[in-house]
Amino acid sequence: MRIHTDLTPSDDYEDVVILIDVLRNSTVASLLLERGLTRLALTPSLRSARAAGKEGWLLLGERAGLPPEGFNYGNSPTELSTIDVSGQQAVMVSENAPRWMSRLASAKQVLLGSLFNATSAAKAAGELATTRVDLVCAGFEAEPDLDDALAAGILGGLLFEALPDAELSGATRFCLALERAFPDPLEALWQSVAGHHLRRLGFEADLAFAAQVSHSDVVPVRTGTVEGAGSAPLYLFSAHPA
Amino acid sequence: MRIHTDLTPSDDYEDVVILIDVLRNSTVASLLLERGLTRLALTPSLRSARAAGKEGWLLLGERAGLPPEGFNYGNSPTELSTIDVSGQQAVMVSENAPRWMSRLASAKQVLLGSLFNATSAAKAAGELATTRVDLVCAGFEAEPDLDDALAAGILGGLLFEALPDAELSGATRFCLALERAFPDPLEALWQSVAGHHLRRLGFEADLAFAAQVSHSDVVPVRTGTVEGAGSAPLYLFSAHPA
Repeated sequence: MRIHTDLTPSDDYEDVVILIDVLRNSTVASLLLERGLTRLALTPSLRSARAAGKEGWLLLGERAGLPPEGFNYGNSPTELSTIDVSGQQAVMVSENAPRWMSRLASAKQVLLGSLFNATSAAKAAGELATTRVDLVCAGFEAEPDLDDALAAGILGGLLFEALPDAELSGATRFCLALERAFPDPLEALWQSVAGHHLRRLGFEADLAFAAQVSHSDVVPVRTGTVEGAGSAPLYLFSAHPA
Repeated sequence: MRIHTDLTPSDDYEDVVILIDVLRNSTVASLLLERGLTRLALTPSLRSARAAGKEGWLLLGERAGLPPEGFNYGNSPTELSTIDVSGQQAVMVSENAPRWMSRLASAKQVLLGSLFNATSAAKAAGELATTRVDLVCAGFEAEPDLDDALAAGILGGLLFEALPDAELSGATRFCLALERAFPDPLEALWQSVAGHHLRRLGFEADLAFAAQVSHSDVVPVRTGTVEGAGSAPLYLFSAHPA
């Protein structure tokens, strides 16, 4: 077994991938499915999302951190933790994690991981994997970022506890070291480029929300891909069976 | 001013690059120039190196960690710190740092940085740069590794002290965090993939050598490129004026 980490996505995946976007896609995905959302579709395409909106899907998401016109909500976990999504379906647009989904096509399983669901995401990945777990950081504007790298370190550490014979890649090793550098995860989120960006937009509370470690048992798992009306498909996620 | 870090080399450089290969190219390059070597040529090509050897250049380097046949020495800093290289020229072969040199062609200045010359390399880069310093980690087998990432963090921290208004990229921020995770740099080298590899080959002492921070004032700077007899050129380095 091998535990591998990509600080930004590459495209050669085969077994289990955990896609990490702490601020904010992966965190929000766990939150919404925990709060009773039946299905979440991720897409980078506004047009694909709006077409789903016409069929009754809730429209969530952001462009440059803010909700696009006509959308029901942004992707602030603080905001989304106060609305009732029970029994509904939602499509979430963002330029970060969803744009990388096309690169994960070859992976057998794609999970969404964050600090928020760390213990459960690591457990699910360890159970599903046969040869390898890839911890894939979404990063920020195609650059590595500290929030996702810290989460990769925490997920990698949990996986290594469960799979002590696993081989660790170089990047996995130094993400593990970040856990020691940041005993308080909020500090890493505060210092990250994504965190700076959200703080400038007034979303400080989302950093504190996303810094909660293992508060959710829900692991979003990719269940399919459907053609979109726009330039990209909808990538469907549901809660992995507990 | 921007301080940017690549955990493995990319290819869009413009201003000042510090190429970091702690185990062992960058460390050895400072050591040799400090010990009186007049010129050091790096190349990934054995044939280019051997042709230079026929013209009287010392032959140094490694394939998979060990000196190739007919070479004078490997690239162990522990070993090379005992030989007299004063007034000589040497060519050093390796599959790590030298193979990335072709990607740095667009950079105005290329320096070699390591823990060993950290203070001087950061100072030189800060003085030479007009828009941007790229800290480029050689990594290990095209993957990020802990030894180079820690050095990038220490170099980045020193640069940021000198240029407190510089913008820091995401990867720079988390390399900075590694410094806190590893108060003893030797521990990072010990845990790195390159370090594991060298320990298996019996080069433990090289890790301790390379973990010495700012022991040398010598900063190797690229002074030219000459056609090689083999598949790659010779990249020439001399000591940057103190």
